[in-house]
Amino acid sequence: FHDAVLFPVARNNMSAEQLGVFREKISQELDRAVEFWTANSHDEKFGGFFTCLGRDGKVYDKLKYVWLQGRQFWIFFFFFCLFLFFFQCSFVSFVLGGEFLLRYARPAPDSRKCAFTLTWDGKTAKVQRTIFSECFYVMAMDELWRVTGEERYQKETLEMMEQIVYWVQEDPSGLGRPELPGAPAVNSMAVPMMLLCLVDQLEEGREEMANAYSDLGKWCVQQILQHVQRGGQAVLETVSVDGQELPGCQGRHQNPGSHAIEAGWFLLRYALKHGDFYFQDVDGHCPTQLEWSMKLWWPHCEALIAFLMAYRETKDPRALENFTRLFDYTFPQFTDPEHGEWFGYLDQEGKITLNFKGGPFKGCFHVPRCLYICEKLLDSLLGKSLAL
Amino acid sequence: FHDAVLFPVARNNMSAEQLGVFREKISQELDRAVEFWTANSHDEKFGGFFTCLGRDGKVYDKLKYVWLQGRQFWIFFFFFCLFLFFFQCSFVSFVLGGEFLLRYARPAPDSRKCAFTLTWDGKTAKVQRTIFSECFYVMAMDELWRVTGEERYQKETLEMMEQIVYWVQEDPSGLGRPELPGAPAVNSMAVPMMLLCLVDQLEEGREEMANAYSDLGKWCVQQILQHVQRGGQAVLETVSVDGQELPGCQGRHQNPGSHAIEAGWFLLRYALKHGDFYFQDVDGHCPTQLEWSMKLWWPHCEALIAFLMAYRETKDPRALENFTRLFDYTFPQFTDPEHGEWFGYLDQEGKITLNFKGGPFKGCFHVPRCLYICEKLLDSLLGKSLAL
Repeated sequence: FHDAVLFPVARNNMSAEQLGVFREKISQELDRAVEFWTANSHDEKFGGFFTCLGRDGKVYDKLKYVWLQGRQFWIFFFFFCLFLFFFQCSFVSFVLGGEFLLRYARPAPDSRKCAFTLTWDGKTAKVQRTIFSECFYVMAMDELWRVTGEERYQKETLEMMEQIVYWVQEDPSGLGRPELPGAPAVNSMAVPMMLLCLVDQLEEGREEMANAYSDLGKWCVQQILQHVQRGGQAVLETVSVDGQELPGCQGRHQNPGSHAIEAGWFLLRYALKHGDFYFQDVDGHCPTQLEWSMKLWWPHCEALIAFLMAYRETKDPRALENFTRLFDYTFPQFTDPEHGEWFGYLDQEGKITLNFKGGPFKGCFHVPRCLYICEKLLDSLLGKSLAL
Repeated sequence: FHDAVLFPVARNNMSAEQLGVFREKISQELDRAVEFWTANSHDEKFGGFFTCLGRDGKVYDKLKYVWLQGRQFWIFFFFFCLFLFFFQCSFVSFVLGGEFLLRYARPAPDSRKCAFTLTWDGKTAKVQRTIFSECFYVMAMDELWRVTGEERYQKETLEMMEQIVYWVQEDPSGLGRPELPGAPAVNSMAVPMMLLCLVDQLEEGREEMANAYSDLGKWCVQQILQHVQRGGQAVLETVSVDGQELPGCQGRHQNPGSHAIEAGWFLLRYALKHGDFYFQDVDGHCPTQLEWSMKLWWPHCEALIAFLMAYRETKDPRALENFTRLFDYTFPQFTDPEHGEWFGYLDQEGKITLNFKGGPFKGCFHVPRCLYICEKLLDSLLGKSLAL
């Protein structure tokens, strides 16, 4: 149906009309998502954000997850500083909130290790032995630095970045995970992807930083490409440090709907051919993660961006066809006509199985980022702007 | 339907007939489960058991999970030593397998901390900062001690038990989890339940041990009862060390279909009234665990035992009614007519979502334990034996 209606090369007008429909829906959803977080997530007492919000925005837990604190700062500063209403209503409280993260994210003053979860008033409740809290902390600090120009945010950004690179490339022992003889070091796709995201963040509009992180960026790309295995037919989440397939479940684990799509358009056909489950096993064994067959919001966000970006670059009608299919699945399934923002967790048949809007891993990040980028891509395709 | 057919007090003969039907089905399933593990899980090369088995019994990962190694030893020794065929075919290989656990479970010779996962040949791949690997290790070592009478198994059993009690009652720092100001010590229901299980194991048939662990047993019961909150209306999985309800998701977390049922018949009515989801939030918020609404095999096993045991003790027809309902749900949903053993993971509607028979947390334990105990309870009810 979509092929016939939208993609004959001779009927570009129909495409433009359809693109306008997409843009309008996306723009509405973006407004509703921003309103949802602005109305419900501010902590006036201790600063920072509440992110455990129910379907209707009510706070059901006051724990503060550092990934989500960092991500929400980044979203608000990077995307929403543009909007006057945002400056009017809450600019000061956001900067004060930045101080919450600066003061409490690192539990030990002599270490750069960040907490994973903080209590409402900033006490450390959980520490993960990975680099991701620290990465989202860098994203937040860099935006604070860009907006305020203050040197202490600059220092925090650059020192934390240096620490992360040291943990990844030199010596991970500071993360606290013991070295075990049965668990040799591996190349985990999430690590170079996250670092590449930080490189993009830091070098954006800054020539000096782009030069400083040029080698790191190339290293990340080379590390990501090591995950393309089996003659280009499979993207594996974890490979050996010299780029070989590993035995057992760990070696066969795939994250097709999200990391593979984020990692590039050339991997997309494979992921789609095998459906859009959250996890899969490359040899078709049943994954052992209980959530493997669920539909999560964030891979759908990543895929919407990837398809639309690919269409803008290549004008290949198959990219728009895939975007349309995904749009037609995602919007009825994930949006909430009553309260705004999206549901995060559906079962294989599309039934909502967890009805909150924010939780330990879902915050103000993927939905507004996706909607904002798609809006700009559609503007560009419709000739309104070439901003992105 | 069941009420009308089975439970009028005047029609006890009908009950006896139905109990016989239950017994026959249960007995068949027990044979099929034992055959499944006997045929597929032995590691002839390094000893111990493969437990990552697909639906048809094929090994899909050679990692060895120490919980499941300990549990399978316990099952085979405790239940199946009775059967001659078992002695004939594999007694020697089991004892040799015990040596695998004895040699490799503890990664550091100067510490009693056990691994969570070992590689095929015994290298440590993962260490959990909890007591549970060590508890299942005690269960295995105690059975080895009982069967062989060897002093080194006795020493291993008693020293590890002493270490576990020290971690739980005196100082948990040896487990490796840092103390965090935002995460004060708590009373987690799984800990006293597991310790009580070990007390039962060690004192069974041994007067001296029963005296030695009498105070510990009383302490466990008192700790478990602290989880009955809100005037007896709610069983909470985690409470403060002085038995108070905690704030947020952690405080509201419930494990109704399993721990609450294991913890006793007097809690059963509550758990059933609220359905048999894997997890729930006592105030009705949506849990944040992605698997919360799934149906897992082991709570169903625990409940079958609890209802049938309650019926034998009280002869209350409601207990048999509940057992019958559960039996009629569990057997069609979880059994596998083709390959034996049970599926472990269904969605809310009963669809199989993970089709393996063994994985990181499912091994040769709950299914044969449940079927064996139910078989003996039915024998007792039918007047064949009073063994249990």
